[in-house]
Amino acid sequence: MLIVKTIQEFMNAKSDLGRKDTLGFVPTMGYLHDGHIELVKRARKENKFVVASIFVNPTQFGENEDLSSYPRDFSRDKKLLEQHECDILFYPSAKEMYPSVQPMETFVVPGKTAERLEGQLRPGHFRGVTTIVSKLLNIVGPTTTYLGQKDGQQVAVIKKLVSDLNFSTKIVVVPTVREPDGLALSSRNTYLTSVQRKKAPYLYSSLLEAFSLYKKGETNTNILKESIIKHLKNDEEIRVDYISVADSNSLEELDIASKGSMISAAIWLGNTRLIDNIILD
Amino acid sequence: MLIVKTIQEFMNAKSDLGRKDTLGFVPTMGYLHDGHIELVKRARKENKFVVASIFVNPTQFGENEDLSSYPRDFSRDKKLLEQHECDILFYPSAKEMYPSVQPMETFVVPGKTAERLEGQLRPGHFRGVTTIVSKLLNIVGPTTTYLGQKDGQQVAVIKKLVSDLNFSTKIVVVPTVREPDGLALSSRNTYLTSVQRKKAPYLYSSLLEAFSLYKKGETNTNILKESIIKHLKNDEEIRVDYISVADSNSLEELDIASKGSMISAAIWLGNTRLIDNIILD
Repeated sequence: MLIVKTIQEFMNAKSDLGRKDTLGFVPTMGYLHDGHIELVKRARKENKFVVASIFVNPTQFGENEDLSSYPRDFSRDKKLLEQHECDILFYPSAKEMYPSVQPMETFVVPGKTAERLEGQLRPGHFRGVTTIVSKLLNIVGPTTTYLGQKDGQQVAVIKKLVSDLNFSTKIVVVPTVREPDGLALSSRNTYLTSVQRKKAPYLYSSLLEAFSLYKKGETNTNILKESIIKHLKNDEEIRVDYISVADSNSLEELDIASKGSMISAAIWLGNTRLIDNIILD
Repeated sequence: MLIVKTIQEFMNAKSDLGRKDTLGFVPTMGYLHDGHIELVKRARKENKFVVASIFVNPTQFGENEDLSSYPRDFSRDKKLLEQHECDILFYPSAKEMYPSVQPMETFVVPGKTAERLEGQLRPGHFRGVTTIVSKLLNIVGPTTTYLGQKDGQQVAVIKKLVSDLNFSTKIVVVPTVREPDGLALSSRNTYLTSVQRKKAPYLYSSLLEAFSLYKKGETNTNILKESIIKHLKNDEEIRVDYISVADSNSLEELDIASKGSMISAAIWLGNTRLIDNIILD
């Protein structure tokens, strides 16, 4: 696996590729877990060439968020990517992506898909996401980009970015990978105390409860959401940030759930915020 | 010359290209004049493949601007491009670029380079420009994009867009083409009455006057600007919109002119607004 730290090196490495060679791209912030590895495996299976990026993007973190403490383990990440036959790891510095000589002033700004849910608590977060993803897509030029379903709103915002600005990459969304007890894998799970860790699976089980009501025929989203709240109230430490039943593309909130709706929720356990979602089928 | 009206057709046409084949791109709003043709000639000389686009982009026009009356002459444009050996003309409809089914919500928003001069009178104009240029660059994927120096601020904003978002195209800026009397060619010159047309060259001659002062050693930008105002005041019908001596990349206003500074001005003649600039060398 080739590790490149500058855009110029990446361009040189890429120039070996033939025009018809497919390139699968897995953008990450590092501290890889099995969720990321599923993306790499899928990219490996479907492309001649696999590129992963590790970049903890400062512009998508708010002022009071965990940019400086975000977990990092480059040597472990590198080993994992090598094991799964990634061809190039793009690992730029913040200065490489945001040079300070002529400071960045052009941003890619998403619209209403980015305003609710995560966007409500984290203003500017998705502007950081769409800007860095645009930069990475322009540098990497992938045939297909692989994203995890766990960040359901991020998937919706990036799909809309790609369609609105005519990026030529396909987007493949890979199902959420979970611990045996149902907790969605996330780099931020490492922040949980062992007591919180035991409570964290309530998030997914509350979504499953709503899903099972839906499968029994309940489509009233107020009733589905109430079942989630009731389930989460079983534990005092859990604070609910939002519960939503929305169209999985536009993220518009729905009165009636149907195929393709996304049930999602965000909760706090102490200082750690967890998100998860289920798409109705 | 192939004329394609949809993005999909363009992608199909482009798939014949080899990976190392260079592609020169000339984005236009049509109603072509010799200024555009210079861009096409330069692209022809420097590339295996030449693509021009004609698209009167609604998102860069303000509500009270001339979108509906903007001059158009497709059959003449087509003939001119064929004569100059353009390979593909991309000629999409507004609906193709901005589908109404899932309305556009992601925009590319420029920063301070876009705020002054043209940006001051035309809020939102450059957001429309950077958004459509991003879309076109993603669709066309050019090796080199050719722009005219006449729109000096547009050049600066697009250069910053390309650098900030890591588009892989090079930007080549082609000198302004002028009428024998000095008036910069512009599709909007057609709006001038014959009396106004006779006065329009004052704009360029006023810039030349400042330039000649500079060449004699005057670098105080207040004095340079005053010489322009004085020259333009020779005619009562001319209303000055702005006069600027700025860094040609950042467009920051300067106290002292030097090599690379851009002297620019915008004037009204009746309802027609003319712009022009000179780069100091």
